[in-house]
Amino acid sequence: MPHIPVPTNLPGIRGLVAFRPEMGRALYDLAEALLVGDSPLSRAERELIAAYVSSRNHCTFCTESHAAASRHLFGAKAGIVDEVLGGDACATPGEKLTSLLAIAGKVQQGGLEVTEADIEQARRAGANDQEIHDTVLVAAAFCMFNRYVDGLASWTPTDPALYAEMGRRMAEQGYAGRLQQILDAR
Amino acid sequence: MPHIPVPTNLPGIRGLVAFRPEMGRALYDLAEALLVGDSPLSRAERELIAAYVSSRNHCTFCTESHAAASRHLFGAKAGIVDEVLGGDACATPGEKLTSLLAIAGKVQQGGLEVTEADIEQARRAGANDQEIHDTVLVAAAFCMFNRYVDGLASWTPTDPALYAEMGRRMAEQGYAGRLQQILDAR
Repeated sequence: MPHIPVPTNLPGIRGLVAFRPEMGRALYDLAEALLVGDSPLSRAERELIAAYVSSRNHCTFCTESHAAASRHLFGAKAGIVDEVLGGDACATPGEKLTSLLAIAGKVQQGGLEVTEADIEQARRAGANDQEIHDTVLVAAAFCMFNRYVDGLASWTPTDPALYAEMGRRMAEQGYAGRLQQILDAR
Repeated sequence: MPHIPVPTNLPGIRGLVAFRPEMGRALYDLAEALLVGDSPLSRAERELIAAYVSSRNHCTFCTESHAAASRHLFGAKAGIVDEVLGGDACATPGEKLTSLLAIAGKVQQGGLEVTEADIEQARRAGANDQEIHDTVLVAAAFCMFNRYVDGLASWTPTDPALYAEMGRRMAEQGYAGRLQQILDAR
């Protein structure tokens, strides 16, 4: 049961932002800038970094929803998502994405864990400054979203079909207009 | 040395947002909503939660700057900040703030660490739903800001006078208009 009285029909972060829309608006705007806005990383890759960090933080709601969004965006290559989340991050995503996921994993542990060697490895694999920046910030942001969702014990659905539908909507509609839809659905 | 080429005259998060203003804007808007916007927690208390979480994440830049902002806002009661950051979180901030700092400390470890007993203790000390919510979200957000600042090895000044001045400006001006000032200062 959530630690605070949120609308019972809204899972995960959706119940929380309905409880506190002024802060929720800033959170959804940030998600839009990080996951949908311009970046040399594809939207599928950024959603995968989000899901990967969330899985390492054991945040089921964020892992399942962002994994579903990433699968939708990867399309025919959706298998990458399950390979990465299955723990074999060195498998098939390609050398550059693998090195960026390694940086994201360090960020999940703590910012000071990221070493010059981690950055060098990503550069050798072809990552540029913006890709490194965006990887660190997306990974850092999900250390926030995960703690928000689980720190208030928000409702975590278990039905995989619900996450597939959520991921499809996140992939197709992004995050900018979400808050109003959530408030309307209360 | 920072992992990416940021303006060398801008410490901490300021160099990073100058490198990536589109994302920086969303980050500063979030800081404004969390630390300056309406809340039953005072601005001094929220800046203290930010500094406390930052110190537990060993993020010197965020600890020193938000501690300075909190001291400025607490005014005559500024000693609370040093008592809390000195590790004696159960000392003098009062029972309610102490219980909220305990929740923030759990959030710093991970969202799933927050227990029903932690929430109950805060409620017994007089905390309401919004105070509990805002504590969790501010603590979670600094797990992001800290990882962003340190994960990219941004410049961390050591001069205490610089942080005192930074904290005064954060306390007096907030965060909403900061990005433009930073871009103008490049």
